[in-house]
Amino acid sequence: MVFAQRVRTLLDQMSLAGVDTVLLSVGADLPYLTGYETTPLERLTMLVVDSAGSTLVVPELEAPRVAPGEFEIVAWKETSNPLDVVAKMCPPSGSIALGDQTWSVFLMGLLERLPKARFRSATPLLRPLRARKDAAEIGLLEAAAATVDRVSARLPSVRFRGRREREVAREVMDMMIQEGHDEGQFWIVASGPNSASPHHEPSERTIEAGDVVVVDFGGRQAGYCSDTARTFVIGEPTAEQIRVHATVLEAQQQALAACRPGATAESIDGVARGVIEQAGFGEYFIHRTGHGIGLETHEHPYLVAGNNEVLEPGMCFSIEPGIYLPGRFGVRIEDIVMVTESHAVPLNNSDRSLRVVS
Amino acid sequence: MVFAQRVRTLLDQMSLAGVDTVLLSVGADLPYLTGYETTPLERLTMLVVDSAGSTLVVPELEAPRVAPGEFEIVAWKETSNPLDVVAKMCPPSGSIALGDQTWSVFLMGLLERLPKARFRSATPLLRPLRARKDAAEIGLLEAAAATVDRVSARLPSVRFRGRREREVAREVMDMMIQEGHDEGQFWIVASGPNSASPHHEPSERTIEAGDVVVVDFGGRQAGYCSDTARTFVIGEPTAEQIRVHATVLEAQQQALAACRPGATAESIDGVARGVIEQAGFGEYFIHRTGHGIGLETHEHPYLVAGNNEVLEPGMCFSIEPGIYLPGRFGVRIEDIVMVTESHAVPLNNSDRSLRVVS
Repeated sequence: MVFAQRVRTLLDQMSLAGVDTVLLSVGADLPYLTGYETTPLERLTMLVVDSAGSTLVVPELEAPRVAPGEFEIVAWKETSNPLDVVAKMCPPSGSIALGDQTWSVFLMGLLERLPKARFRSATPLLRPLRARKDAAEIGLLEAAAATVDRVSARLPSVRFRGRREREVAREVMDMMIQEGHDEGQFWIVASGPNSASPHHEPSERTIEAGDVVVVDFGGRQAGYCSDTARTFVIGEPTAEQIRVHATVLEAQQQALAACRPGATAESIDGVARGVIEQAGFGEYFIHRTGHGIGLETHEHPYLVAGNNEVLEPGMCFSIEPGIYLPGRFGVRIEDIVMVTESHAVPLNNSDRSLRVVS
Repeated sequence: MVFAQRVRTLLDQMSLAGVDTVLLSVGADLPYLTGYETTPLERLTMLVVDSAGSTLVVPELEAPRVAPGEFEIVAWKETSNPLDVVAKMCPPSGSIALGDQTWSVFLMGLLERLPKARFRSATPLLRPLRARKDAAEIGLLEAAAATVDRVSARLPSVRFRGRREREVAREVMDMMIQEGHDEGQFWIVASGPNSASPHHEPSERTIEAGDVVVVDFGGRQAGYCSDTARTFVIGEPTAEQIRVHATVLEAQQQALAACRPGATAESIDGVARGVIEQAGFGEYFIHRTGHGIGLETHEHPYLVAGNNEVLEPGMCFSIEPGIYLPGRFGVRIEDIVMVTESHAVPLNNSDRSLRVVS
């Protein structure tokens, strides 16, 4: 049973790190260890893991939706305080590791109830488990990547010119569902000067001839995430647009080629950044080169200067350099890649060229 | 300017409570005060409010999407730590109030950097502002409620019998968009025994003759949320189904009638619960009677035993009693209501009866 095995590995990590209890609430650690997922709302759901076993503390009204697993279920009533329940299960002066995304109001409540306990982040314990995907997880990430690739393949036949970003974005979202995603999570359509804003929110701007358009989208399928970006141009590209796009593509491909077990995460960022700096665009590449992906769109490892984490087989992450010329245009090309025993392979394989669309 | 006025009111609250600095990250407090909204990801976005003014600390790559407002913008680079930036703006041994939904990993980082500061929840400062909606907010909540009412009106013509919950749920989601929502947020379709699970996740179960079906759905429109629930039956209802439904409707209507400025939140819960207990179903009403709504689907005030918060004109919340008979069926009826100067009026007005569908 995959969940029981994961909990056993976590317990080994806890024992090595001297952690008595792990508390997991909002975020993907909980579904990773139990298969149970809930909506992050004000009613506390928390998995308590210690050497005695795992206990899922849930609101009474959500208890009926928990499928039985290898954990005990403790349901709390609407008129009780779930933090009292959790605090009683913790060692009063022990070492407690907490999931990063747990709401701070819950941490404050625990600090109050357990003033002698030492709290730390649970991420260092879970990161080594979650970052290396097993065969089943890789299969799910491949399937999710194939879905967005089918959307990418349809993009050249979408009408861009004369339509608002928001309309095109809605079409991208619909295509993700049509092609097999359970949900779309983001659908950036950034045109003209907006393409120079990496996390642009699709707007009422009408797409015009001559625009560069960055389309960056992803969603979830069977719990696992997709994320890909391609850049288009409305009508014939200028020499500068071609040169910027070629630089980004070169950076992206060289970064991919540099991936191998043993390389550091920051070295891959360095390769992509080096290509872009060399071409004179260094100051316009204003974000890291990539992020891990799995149950969450963004998770470890992060490909960023300062992260000397070492790549290992089974790690999956994005490689997505970009160049953003403020007020003018931007280009980004993004694939999810998987580290193998010897190098890395892209899970996204749709056409990466600067395609002309109408 | 509405945002400037809200910040001024917050500063008054801070001064009364002896709070030096307010820090707001994930959650609706930040958009409420600035109009700026971002995705809750690992890159920290944080609004710092103190008597000197407001500063929005944002990832450099998201700075281009921030519309200018009455706050300063400080963009942090990918290779720097935003907590260093925020900590420098805080009084080292002052009183700091933090948004409840801020990730605990950020609170831990702040505790490390500001060991002498006193941290508390920002909710008591913001709750009085956010709970009383102004005229513009009420207009937006009315519009959102009207959208889901149009969906409710279409539900009797949806085919239920012989289809999977998940297919019907998808149709509900699509209708929310068609009728005017920017996004659907949840779409519970809980049939037969599943209707006894209040937060049931739509499943592969095929809906059959004789099933009770709870449909509970909501989404967002221009930033404000909707939330409504109606209960249907496939074919003629049994006497017991009719009785349970009538009890829930009576509880819901009596709770509405009890709303007025000055009544406590828990007293409204008590009215609904009293009706259901009287009818002998007390142990099967396993959740609170309602929750506030606005920028978030669930916010203050909560209608629950133990909450003696007093209702005020402009407060908007759900009234949604239910009865859940495990393994058999459940019924829930939910409207958003608004407290006026003298009583309360429902914003949802679609047919509340136990409608027979096919």
